[in-house]
Amino acid sequence: MFTGLSAFPLTPLRDDRFDERAYTGLVTRLAEAGVDSVGALGSTGSYAYLDREERGRVARAAVRSAGEVPVIVGIGSLRTSHVRALAEDAQRAGAAAVLLAPVSYQKLTDEEVFGLYEEVTAELSVPLVVYDNPATTHVTFSDELYARVAALPNVAAIKIPPVPLDPVAARERVDAVRRAVPDHVSVGVSGDGSAATGLAAGCRAWYSVVAGTVPGAVLPLARAALDGDTATADAESERLRPLWDLFAAHGSLRVVAAIAEHLGLVAPHCLPRPILGLPADQRERVARVVGDLGLG
Amino acid sequence: MFTGLSAFPLTPLRDDRFDERAYTGLVTRLAEAGVDSVGALGSTGSYAYLDREERGRVARAAVRSAGEVPVIVGIGSLRTSHVRALAEDAQRAGAAAVLLAPVSYQKLTDEEVFGLYEEVTAELSVPLVVYDNPATTHVTFSDELYARVAALPNVAAIKIPPVPLDPVAARERVDAVRRAVPDHVSVGVSGDGSAATGLAAGCRAWYSVVAGTVPGAVLPLARAALDGDTATADAESERLRPLWDLFAAHGSLRVVAAIAEHLGLVAPHCLPRPILGLPADQRERVARVVGDLGLG
Repeated sequence: MFTGLSAFPLTPLRDDRFDERAYTGLVTRLAEAGVDSVGALGSTGSYAYLDREERGRVARAAVRSAGEVPVIVGIGSLRTSHVRALAEDAQRAGAAAVLLAPVSYQKLTDEEVFGLYEEVTAELSVPLVVYDNPATTHVTFSDELYARVAALPNVAAIKIPPVPLDPVAARERVDAVRRAVPDHVSVGVSGDGSAATGLAAGCRAWYSVVAGTVPGAVLPLARAALDGDTATADAESERLRPLWDLFAAHGSLRVVAAIAEHLGLVAPHCLPRPILGLPADQRERVARVVGDLGLG
Repeated sequence: MFTGLSAFPLTPLRDDRFDERAYTGLVTRLAEAGVDSVGALGSTGSYAYLDREERGRVARAAVRSAGEVPVIVGIGSLRTSHVRALAEDAQRAGAAAVLLAPVSYQKLTDEEVFGLYEEVTAELSVPLVVYDNPATTHVTFSDELYARVAALPNVAAIKIPPVPLDPVAARERVDAVRRAVPDHVSVGVSGDGSAATGLAAGCRAWYSVVAGTVPGAVLPLARAALDGDTATADAESERLRPLWDLFAAHGSLRVVAAIAEHLGLVAPHCLPRPILGLPADQRERVARVVGDLGLG
């Protein structure tokens, strides 16, 4: 489950309520496209903005729609007791694994981050993916902290931040993480624009934003990279550069939301306010990129 | 209401539940000490870690215990619709004003921050304090954004981050904010260690962490500073330096929690996990400082 392409769909809203019909459509598309796992309620799935009841509904809808494809459910929250409750809900919904980022409001110490994982993993019946996303959590994992957390029971994988674009630096980064964690813990990469580099550097999983909305666009890249065909993977990644440029300018969430809205997969204004969709001129640019790259 | 000393109490937990009895004691102490307002559910009050039902109970307990002292209630949350619901709850509880920080998970644009305040202020019946706390929200207000937000209806005050310790730089900073916002909008300072400087630089309110737990310790400083007696205020601030050093080392939240626990005002381990209290050696240091400075 912690190898290959893991696709992270949006959790679309309609008038500030979970749009279950659109979500079912999104997840069904992912399963049909042949992704290796579905990441429900990741950052792209707006987990941090949804309440417990909504998150339960999303998790159940994801499991129902994904068929045989395993679903990894995000359980991050600011308070440990809330994370534990969400872990229970996710397992009851049929999650094959859970994904946990150490979300922070008050800056957390390493001891506090470790304590969070220690408490939560102690009572899990499914594997856990450690979700390291400093841009949203404002927590920085040292390799030493990776090592401590990865040694906990039920920790099966780590989702690391984007690797450097330079292949040598990327390899050094992935090697350092690999040295820090036990062999049985999978190291996977996020940041779609540098995923080809991350997979070439030794990551065995790609936790992908694009794959959650237009999986067909990145499956050739993922398959080539995981087969060791670096040249094809790099060429595919280069072909998708207009998309990476949009991500860099506006954040991947706003761009995939605009793509999904443009393709009619979700209703307009599907993101939770205060997050706004892209302005009109940028939506036109997104539409051109969708057309040029044949996304959808 | 937006001048003088505003005291921000902890929201103590006991076994992960709101400890209403201890909280009532804390707020009653503040009213009896003669603070000018109570800031319930600020960062020190762990608002970001509590659910809506808990926050309603805290707001009602604060208003009930504060007597004649006006209560400002924090309504921050990641999602605009949740903020609006919390604003309703706070007003129903009897809040004299609300306090709103633009909490973020996905990085917000200025347009999104402005949109949040625009939607929330449009339906308020009480004044709003704009809460700028970049260390926890990861939003940076430009003076231009201050100007746009402060021009919205019902915006009555801005709580700015700590000012520079250099008096000239502090004065420049406060002057720049004052120039950006309408005259009727009060500018108040946070960051207890530089409050004397901020008040000397022209701030008319001090939003204080220490005052929420041991108000007697800082009332002389506040009164002197607001009366323009800068020499006395500076001497008081200098006297309290061991406390500011602890704040700098561990964050003010963990230190005031340790003080409140040491004084028996709250039960041990009163903070929401994953936040841990201070380790034993630092608690001893806190106890010494409490003794040396005669806090309590």
